[in-house]
Amino acid sequence: MQNINSYVQEHKDRFIDELLALLKIPSISADSAYEKDVIKTAQEIKNSLENAGCDKVEICETPGYPIVYGEKIIDKKLPTVLVYGHYDVQPPDPLDLWDSPPFEPVIKPTDIHPEGAIFARGSCDDKGQMYMHVKALELMTKTDQLPCNVKFMIEGEEEVGSKSLGWFVERNQEKLANDVILISDTGMIAKDVPSITTGLRGLSYVEVEVTGPNRDLHSGLYGGAVANPINVLTKMIASLHDENNHITIPGFYDKVEELSKEERAEMAKAPFSIEAYKNALAINDVYGEEGYTTNERNSIRPTLDVNGIWGGYTGEGAKTVIASKAYAKISMRLVPNQDWEEITELFAKHFESIAPEAVTVKVTPHHGGQGYVTPIDNIGYQAASKAYQDTFGTTPIPQRSGGSIPIVSLFEKELKSKTILMGFGLNSDAIHSPNEHFGVWNYLKGIETIPLFYKYFTELSQ
Amino acid sequence: MQNINSYVQEHKDRFIDELLALLKIPSISADSAYEKDVIKTAQEIKNSLENAGCDKVEICETPGYPIVYGEKIIDKKLPTVLVYGHYDVQPPDPLDLWDSPPFEPVIKPTDIHPEGAIFARGSCDDKGQMYMHVKALELMTKTDQLPCNVKFMIEGEEEVGSKSLGWFVERNQEKLANDVILISDTGMIAKDVPSITTGLRGLSYVEVEVTGPNRDLHSGLYGGAVANPINVLTKMIASLHDENNHITIPGFYDKVEELSKEERAEMAKAPFSIEAYKNALAINDVYGEEGYTTNERNSIRPTLDVNGIWGGYTGEGAKTVIASKAYAKISMRLVPNQDWEEITELFAKHFESIAPEAVTVKVTPHHGGQGYVTPIDNIGYQAASKAYQDTFGTTPIPQRSGGSIPIVSLFEKELKSKTILMGFGLNSDAIHSPNEHFGVWNYLKGIETIPLFYKYFTELSQ
Repeated sequence: MQNINSYVQEHKDRFIDELLALLKIPSISADSAYEKDVIKTAQEIKNSLENAGCDKVEICETPGYPIVYGEKIIDKKLPTVLVYGHYDVQPPDPLDLWDSPPFEPVIKPTDIHPEGAIFARGSCDDKGQMYMHVKALELMTKTDQLPCNVKFMIEGEEEVGSKSLGWFVERNQEKLANDVILISDTGMIAKDVPSITTGLRGLSYVEVEVTGPNRDLHSGLYGGAVANPINVLTKMIASLHDENNHITIPGFYDKVEELSKEERAEMAKAPFSIEAYKNALAINDVYGEEGYTTNERNSIRPTLDVNGIWGGYTGEGAKTVIASKAYAKISMRLVPNQDWEEITELFAKHFESIAPEAVTVKVTPHHGGQGYVTPIDNIGYQAASKAYQDTFGTTPIPQRSGGSIPIVSLFEKELKSKTILMGFGLNSDAIHSPNEHFGVWNYLKGIETIPLFYKYFTELSQ
Repeated sequence: MQNINSYVQEHKDRFIDELLALLKIPSISADSAYEKDVIKTAQEIKNSLENAGCDKVEICETPGYPIVYGEKIIDKKLPTVLVYGHYDVQPPDPLDLWDSPPFEPVIKPTDIHPEGAIFARGSCDDKGQMYMHVKALELMTKTDQLPCNVKFMIEGEEEVGSKSLGWFVERNQEKLANDVILISDTGMIAKDVPSITTGLRGLSYVEVEVTGPNRDLHSGLYGGAVANPINVLTKMIASLHDENNHITIPGFYDKVEELSKEERAEMAKAPFSIEAYKNALAINDVYGEEGYTTNERNSIRPTLDVNGIWGGYTGEGAKTVIASKAYAKISMRLVPNQDWEEITELFAKHFESIAPEAVTVKVTPHHGGQGYVTPIDNIGYQAASKAYQDTFGTTPIPQRSGGSIPIVSLFEKELKSKTILMGFGLNSDAIHSPNEHFGVWNYLKGIETIPLFYKYFTELSQ
């Protein structure tokens, strides 16, 4: 393919400015206060797809936030790539830990990104990585090198569980028909160690509420005689892991695939320094399930984490109160074969069963999704591998990710096609955290690599 | 004593109106946003003491909120009663559980208070009960029946641990010299079952902070591999009670007095219905230390309760995050002989010792106080008992309270005098809770009973 690099060099300042503009809109799907901004972002995506050369772009209404659909069909006989991404972002709190406001993007160099990184919520997850595909399409159309058909489906509810996506996909099978699905919403091992994510963990996210007395009580007059919902909640949550950090929910591990010695040895080849890992997080020690390495604990093993907990008096000073209620948000990361709805039921059944008589418990499922694996002999995987070899000069490593993109297994079920996860972010990019950022080098490298995927996928499809 | 009842009947509407005005000022000592209101309340107390007949009233500055001092000395040879109370109140949250705004007092009848109850934060604890003493003084001076000397010491930091009171008492031993200390900041068993509190629990209040990674993390990428501070905090708190709800802190029970069979039998005589207790709180079962009754659990036994807990994402929707920090406010109620500073040290030492390597823990003591017991052969107790017999027509029951008034043991140490706790509130008055209230009948009954305490105490002192 000609002049990819020169086109990127020529237009890179504009590519960056367009992304910065997109990052200024606080499209926080979890907080209804930002509804207008989420909608506005969808409109901006529509405009950008039209400018990039799509023939047809539409904002598709759903029961939730709209999905932006765009397409450029050059020849029905040629293969079709469906690009998925999301334009919504995680809530930015805690705000006080950001060095610069989350929705006022700034470019600063870091040790890992000497060429500069874009600091803003969504810079990597997923506005930045999604926008690489929009600019790659622009590059292919403007240089007249688009080798196949392309469709875009960009949603606005990924950070709250893609509530409406299933609804949309089921109703638009034909419109979304494709030969491969391409997503950049994952990371790679390092700038000089490209990787392709072949496995994802599933997710079950629930909220629990423990109710004791019908009102807040004076801890002196009632302390010791009445169940304290916070104390009870801590006991219940603590009991969900045993002394080896195995999860104690009956049936939880029944469908977990145990990897072979060989597979685990293969995984262990990925470069990893436990010291660097601990230093990066400023922790004295790692912590997790007995019998597994750190890289296994966060990829091939299921987990249970409390994502939020609250109850009683949390303000300034002291209040001697026994709260009426205590709450927690709990998420479980699942591995392929675990069914998220089944796990959610197992959790609810178990959690209710361990509550003492003196309290009542409510478990509310938030959302979830299945785990997923892509075989590396798939031509989509091979096309991606060749593309990386051209731009990085090295063969990418197949990698299992601990994260979840629940919709990948939905796509396989509804659209009967495999998904290729070409991630250009780094673990150090702090997605979902304060000071999220995305390297300018990674952003531009993505725009260079994606057109080559189209080229090789089209060739391998013949 | 003549016309006590007629004077109260004649002036009761004004007595109530004056209290309502006092309750409108949000004197929340725990929240610095209300500093002006706390100061304003002190000024109002000063005015009310002058109007009630004190010869000398002053607002005494302290390192914290001022203490209002007032006195009426009629004859140095006569005994002196020192009245203690506090003009600060607990924070009112959770606000949404109040039926009417906490600082807009309203009078409504309830099942227990058919004559009406005053609903407002502080109505019972302690503005209402403290103001009974101001009006009782007015009654005695205006009807020329004050039989002895009286001093008032009304503070503004009781709800945050009386931080400055010790400082003030140590520096004003002579000014505060007295023969007995009189406090109404406790309750009685029922309107037809008056009681005098002879024992109080001590208190140790701490805040704990658990820190894991140096920033919030994506629970997919790190979940299972890094210690989650919230999960760890729940495990640490849960471990503070064993399966019999005994507290597991080494040395915690060393100085706890075990009551004799006889004493426990005496206590058991107080009228109590476990069914009524459960119904009032809408709980299916009580919960507490194995081997003790409900009334023992909340009076003669020490406890450990979480008063507040927070960490991670607590907003709307879902956020898949592992928080960097988790926090809890924990209070321990102590019984006589347990030293609160020693217990605080034992807690800190133990809590730090049970933290896994993967996190760091900080324990910050908030405040505390010792437990206390008044012997019933004390003439102050006997004077109070006679006063109740006159106004209630029945002998009050000596009662151990689960609550803490740390300063009572401070007074004994610094001023060498015993404290008599004449409480007129009811457990159902919801102090420290939404919809705190105080029965109009109880308020007026207090104003009638207090002058009789002065009469009998003066007689018994001769």
